[in-house]
Amino acid sequence: MKNIALVGCGLVGGSWALVFSRAGFDVTLYDPSPTAVQTALDVARNAAETLARQDLLHAERVEDVLARLRPAPSLAEAVRNADYIQESAPERLAVKQELYRDLAVAAGPDAVIASSTSGLPASAFTAGIPGRARCVVAHPINPPHLIPLVEIIPAPWTDPSVVARTHALMQAVGQVPIQLSREIPGFVVNRLQSAVLAEGFRLVEDGICSPDDVDAAMSNGLGLRWFFMGPFETIDLNAQGGIADYCRKLGPMYYDLAREQADPRPWSEALVARVEAARRGRTPAADLDARKAWRDRCLARLVRTKREIVQDQE
Amino acid sequence: MKNIALVGCGLVGGSWALVFSRAGFDVTLYDPSPTAVQTALDVARNAAETLARQDLLHAERVEDVLARLRPAPSLAEAVRNADYIQESAPERLAVKQELYRDLAVAAGPDAVIASSTSGLPASAFTAGIPGRARCVVAHPINPPHLIPLVEIIPAPWTDPSVVARTHALMQAVGQVPIQLSREIPGFVVNRLQSAVLAEGFRLVEDGICSPDDVDAAMSNGLGLRWFFMGPFETIDLNAQGGIADYCRKLGPMYYDLAREQADPRPWSEALVARVEAARRGRTPAADLDARKAWRDRCLARLVRTKREIVQDQE
Repeated sequence: MKNIALVGCGLVGGSWALVFSRAGFDVTLYDPSPTAVQTALDVARNAAETLARQDLLHAERVEDVLARLRPAPSLAEAVRNADYIQESAPERLAVKQELYRDLAVAAGPDAVIASSTSGLPASAFTAGIPGRARCVVAHPINPPHLIPLVEIIPAPWTDPSVVARTHALMQAVGQVPIQLSREIPGFVVNRLQSAVLAEGFRLVEDGICSPDDVDAAMSNGLGLRWFFMGPFETIDLNAQGGIADYCRKLGPMYYDLAREQADPRPWSEALVARVEAARRGRTPAADLDARKAWRDRCLARLVRTKREIVQDQE
Repeated sequence: MKNIALVGCGLVGGSWALVFSRAGFDVTLYDPSPTAVQTALDVARNAAETLARQDLLHAERVEDVLARLRPAPSLAEAVRNADYIQESAPERLAVKQELYRDLAVAAGPDAVIASSTSGLPASAFTAGIPGRARCVVAHPINPPHLIPLVEIIPAPWTDPSVVARTHALMQAVGQVPIQLSREIPGFVVNRLQSAVLAEGFRLVEDGICSPDDVDAAMSNGLGLRWFFMGPFETIDLNAQGGIADYCRKLGPMYYDLAREQADPRPWSEALVARVEAARRGRTPAADLDARKAWRDRCLARLVRTKREIVQDQE
């Protein structure tokens, strides 16, 4: 793989642009809206400069990295020489379906066409196109230049070599790919998030604790270990005899909890309003953008520091 | 509050001992087994020395901190002058019931008696004792000297001032208390963990992805934000208009997922064996203790570094 094309620009496209360009790849960008292309370039520049200020990217490399990003005047020109196309178009089925009809013609027969979609399976927008075996989902967690996880989800007709090449490319650019065997609603990440959010809203709705308490339970409790160990490793280290010992002792308790939690609830307007009021008490609406920038600065430093600390202690 | 008594020693007791003594409190320790008292003292010493090696505790303070820990020859002497008693006896109902009958007599009428129990509600072992309004659960996440979260759960008869004094003490020693309105199975932390584990085991059982992939989805994805922001703040910052906007757009998707996840399953032996095999491939059984020590060294550094980074970026 040598040439990367990004189709569909904006926030995600801009962050992807930095992921590939800082790893040394040439990147063409296309979006039907010139404004969106400019947004992606601005996002990439801001992100690169923030990384440089935090010593996470050599300052003298910033311009080189950004120089690898080249807007293309048409879809055809963007993808003509691309070995790998990362599509980040809007999350609307009709938009993707139309785009993939064009991509099928414009992209080379050996190119990988990967979608950033967080919710649509590739089978929903690649069914009818020629060369659909080239298509796969490569779902990033926003923003991918700070959060390495990428979920790779094949459609039933995706060629296994497309999955393998996507996996290898993601590793080559420093991301952490995981591979799903088949399409499933929410993929893995949003299913795990769904489980936590459902319980968080349930606890608040039932008056057990406040929204701030739910957040503290994570950010001062569970999240401290989950930052560097997954849930299975966490319980593996929480019993004398490892995870089998843990499950033998606590499996029945968790099964009882799971039965209580098998209580799917829509999030009512009143409930959402309560949680929103708690959030606005912490971060007024006018400060949300500043808080997002704070989050990204924290993420950048924490991810680098984590790598150092975890290696240092091994 | 001035004098702390720890009743029931061992791993949790030893970590609690350090929490209170490093904050300047005098701590008496009692356990019917002298071996358990020694274990707690050893745990506290090892933990204090590890913190000192990592510059998280001044080296010259270590002996002062440990000198505040004084084993008591009997339960009565341990708790006689205690303003606050943290009980960390074994998680067996009959053991706690008998212990609380003795504690009710030995403890002062104004002392707080807080249990470290992770699963038993205070109502189950304080119902019949005199002065039961003094009793509450203060559930730490292990090890409390590294993980600040403490869940405070009153029994129906717990005096509100007991909850308030426990809350204030936890804040005074640098822990982060959250307050539940009433007893509920799993409290908050284990309910959130239950939701994640249930989904993790479901994904593996259904062949969607490997146990390592579940762990990576957390430790390279969701867990990076949950380390310093809870799940509500995370989604609040993931939509232009904050959490209400997020829920309006994605609530229906999460409701669909919640309905799919309303599928409680016991963890079968075969399933646990698969996850265990994956874990042993990463950490052989003989290395589990070393890995636990690694985890605690990482935790100590990460929690301190997190505080610095988060403040630095504000």
